[in-house]
Amino acid sequence: MANSPSGDSVTDRIVRVLETFTPTRTVQTAAEIGRRAGLPSSTAHRVVGDLVDAGLLDRDGEGRLSVGLRLWELATRSSHALRVRQAAMPAMERVQARVREHTQLAILEQDEALFLERLSDSQAGANVTRIAGRLPLHATSSGLVLLAFADSEVQERVLARPLRPMTAQTPTDAGVVRRKLAEVRALGHVIAKGYIDEVSTGVAVPVRDRASGATAALSVVLPRDAATGLALEELHRAAREIEAALV
Amino acid sequence: MANSPSGDSVTDRIVRVLETFTPTRTVQTAAEIGRRAGLPSSTAHRVVGDLVDAGLLDRDGEGRLSVGLRLWELATRSSHALRVRQAAMPAMERVQARVREHTQLAILEQDEALFLERLSDSQAGANVTRIAGRLPLHATSSGLVLLAFADSEVQERVLARPLRPMTAQTPTDAGVVRRKLAEVRALGHVIAKGYIDEVSTGVAVPVRDRASGATAALSVVLPRDAATGLALEELHRAAREIEAALV
Repeated sequence: MANSPSGDSVTDRIVRVLETFTPTRTVQTAAEIGRRAGLPSSTAHRVVGDLVDAGLLDRDGEGRLSVGLRLWELATRSSHALRVRQAAMPAMERVQARVREHTQLAILEQDEALFLERLSDSQAGANVTRIAGRLPLHATSSGLVLLAFADSEVQERVLARPLRPMTAQTPTDAGVVRRKLAEVRALGHVIAKGYIDEVSTGVAVPVRDRASGATAALSVVLPRDAATGLALEELHRAAREIEAALV
Repeated sequence: MANSPSGDSVTDRIVRVLETFTPTRTVQTAAEIGRRAGLPSSTAHRVVGDLVDAGLLDRDGEGRLSVGLRLWELATRSSHALRVRQAAMPAMERVQARVREHTQLAILEQDEALFLERLSDSQAGANVTRIAGRLPLHATSSGLVLLAFADSEVQERVLARPLRPMTAQTPTDAGVVRRKLAEVRALGHVIAKGYIDEVSTGVAVPVRDRASGATAALSVVLPRDAATGLALEELHRAAREIEAALV
């Protein structure tokens, strides 16, 4: 009943509609949504209409659509991400108050680093990370920490794929990444200088959640040639605090 | 095609399934979801299966379901709530660092106060607020601020309904609330002592967003008999900073 002739479910079509909204594309017309979601115009208009009726999309006076607060509320109020983020916030705020650059929390999601939180000083340097945004595992300090403590199955899958260079410094050779991961496990942290952005250095440590068995990555993004000592010290202390809060 | 014989759309059923998850009920079986959503068992299992396939629900090894990170990601990455929250965070962190209790940000959503953010000191007192949780407008400092600056249509609708007491101090008479709202507009803040919880006092100020025309409420929750001077001073300063960041 809920399936179209092409076999995709209504749920799939709703997800395809929601996926057309991004951090840089927050308002769209129904026609734009249909084109970007690869849906026939009549289907797009019907799905969008249902989503507006349910409060998951908002329609403004000119017929333009945006993601509704109701969706955020439903997604957030019972989520695991929120629990981890809440446990991490006091420690993240302390790191941020002392280092005064960018402090971030990420988890592993579908072979990418998904960022749950980012605190930024108004004077801080460049940072490509966005909340609810994703970055590749091999090219970020957070990603390398997540990959270093992931199942070997995940590691092999990620390393078997082409490792795309983001800058001239990004490690793109599986053997080099493998040695980096061993180093992360030995040291308990990683410093990624210019890997994702020429002008910045990422510093990250693991946060182990015994309840879920998962690892989160706590990181600081600094200007490329900044000293990393203070950030490392604060990150290690914060990770212990978060682990204690997660028990 | 997407509608059942009873006329509700698949989207409605998905929302009803998602609505069964709450901050205190984060893991459920498909049978529990069906019962709580008022859906026939076969429908519940099919909708849940589609949501798991789409990554919006996660199923663990024992078949228990929870809200997936994919939903949080889709809801968060392009949302208006995130923009307001991001603009407010540096100022909220400063309030929190100085007052060291609870600092919160709320907006008006469907005649209730919806909380976008909460920062809490580990030593802070009681606080019923949750992120992505809602509280009644007449019984909270945040809600009174939101109501004071809402359209008169919203004010009349809210005041025409029974105003439920949460404690012996909650204002439940429409005339009393009306006078309180006039006071909020005159003073630019509200102090709600014991309104929602006997043991705490809420202090809130408005944050006007010229771009959207909406008002957010920035608040601090203190132990009931704590002095409110520092919180008020910090809140007023923070509101100006957030308004500047939102332009």
